[in-house]
Amino acid sequence: MIYYITPTYPRPEQIPELTRLGHTLMHVPRIHWIIADDQSLCSTNVLNLLRRTGLPFTHISSPKPYVYKGTNFPRGVSNRRAALVWLRENVREGVMYFGDDDNTVDLQLFDEIRRTKKVSMFPVGLIGDYGISAPIIKDGKVVAFFDSWPGSRTFPVDMAGFAVNIEFLTPTATMPYSAGHEEDKFLMSLGIKLDDIEPLADNCSKVLVWHTKTVKFKKPNLKIDIERISKLPKYEDFANLLKETSRLGMAGIFSKNGSKTFIIKDRKTFEPLSLLPTLV
Amino acid sequence: MIYYITPTYPRPEQIPELTRLGHTLMHVPRIHWIIADDQSLCSTNVLNLLRRTGLPFTHISSPKPYVYKGTNFPRGVSNRRAALVWLRENVREGVMYFGDDDNTVDLQLFDEIRRTKKVSMFPVGLIGDYGISAPIIKDGKVVAFFDSWPGSRTFPVDMAGFAVNIEFLTPTATMPYSAGHEEDKFLMSLGIKLDDIEPLADNCSKVLVWHTKTVKFKKPNLKIDIERISKLPKYEDFANLLKETSRLGMAGIFSKNGSKTFIIKDRKTFEPLSLLPTLV
Repeated sequence: MIYYITPTYPRPEQIPELTRLGHTLMHVPRIHWIIADDQSLCSTNVLNLLRRTGLPFTHISSPKPYVYKGTNFPRGVSNRRAALVWLRENVREGVMYFGDDDNTVDLQLFDEIRRTKKVSMFPVGLIGDYGISAPIIKDGKVVAFFDSWPGSRTFPVDMAGFAVNIEFLTPTATMPYSAGHEEDKFLMSLGIKLDDIEPLADNCSKVLVWHTKTVKFKKPNLKIDIERISKLPKYEDFANLLKETSRLGMAGIFSKNGSKTFIIKDRKTFEPLSLLPTLV
Repeated sequence: MIYYITPTYPRPEQIPELTRLGHTLMHVPRIHWIIADDQSLCSTNVLNLLRRTGLPFTHISSPKPYVYKGTNFPRGVSNRRAALVWLRENVREGVMYFGDDDNTVDLQLFDEIRRTKKVSMFPVGLIGDYGISAPIIKDGKVVAFFDSWPGSRTFPVDMAGFAVNIEFLTPTATMPYSAGHEEDKFLMSLGIKLDDIEPLADNCSKVLVWHTKTVKFKKPNLKIDIERISKLPKYEDFANLLKETSRLGMAGIFSKNGSKTFIIKDRKTFEPLSLLPTLV
């Protein structure tokens, strides 16, 4: 079984991101999706999405610790720590992998990481100033790394560039709140040596995962009175769309504040509540 | 049969984009993927990817017309026009849909657009200043539009917001080179009226497709001598990774030009050709 750990947080593009990652995971046999939500309550939107995939999943609420609120702390660490705790308490065997909600994974990667005995590594595309981050292999062993940011790291790799056998997840294994050093310090906490690493993806000569990033959509605040629209006869579908837009976090919708909104008919713009009641 | 038309062009994130879109389409029965490449030759990278999906596909080379080279012309139009020509010459029945390589589509959308008799429409998320673009429905008919950019358009909708039955694709149907007006003018060229439009997605009250955008990765130019590395004993895997990185367009790799590169061992950085031969 592969345990695919995805930290996530609410934002306008969260549901589409998880939707398409779900489409990838739905092709993979024996996978368990751990979604760790950066919230004090598990999101209903995310839960509904997980149910629709038909995949086995665990939905963890893992708000960041209070002391880090508002400071420049590394996003995703509290989520991944919560997932590690859950794994240690609930799972005896399998392989774990940290897969963010915006990464792209080739299906072949899943066949490969499934064989991980201790810790496996492989190249990640679209990283840093080299376009790639990868271990360098000689005689089937990792001897060095090709990554544009040394950062005094023993294991200069991306979060998506390794998988770990859960039997090898020792009680000391943890991830520090240390921006840029999460991967290195997690791997150090496992007590591994270069010699333990199993290179995958044809001895680290192929790219099977990419650090794609999605453009952040700036959530607008709109002034449009959903209550009054839902009371007009026959516009309940439009009112429901506005509610859905708000519920999915794609726009804030308010009756009294926010940017003025218009609707379009015959190439002209109108205030919603002046036009809608007049249409036949 | 659904004909899914995807215009594409070479860039560092092209292969991951098409990889994850492929994962979505691989869940859909009776789909034919038309990839229209903005190049004079069909890309081998794209062709290999299409073959691996197992989907029926057509790979069209559709370079932009010479007169538009270098000017601010709308990307994707020559590709979509080429796909329309191919459809008219080769297909008698089915439904066509314009799906860009960075959009996100809920699997339910495919079940819905399959029923399109003439032209169907539905909301698209993450668009413009409203976070949504959608037809407004009354009594099961489109009566107006909710979209933040009127643009003097009769059909102010996104490219991903409609599907067309191929029997309804008249000989006059075409898409102009007119930035921002491609959708409207294409729909006008079909000769449709508001009354012809079939609303989907629960009378346009649900969001089943999102205009997600992927951050453009700035392709670096790197100085690293692949020829010399491939001649060192036992580093053919690293040489192959560098070739793959170049072939996938994630970095330009040159022996004499480009930014200096380093490899990392034991937290220290080294010039590749000074360190690699010394490692045992």
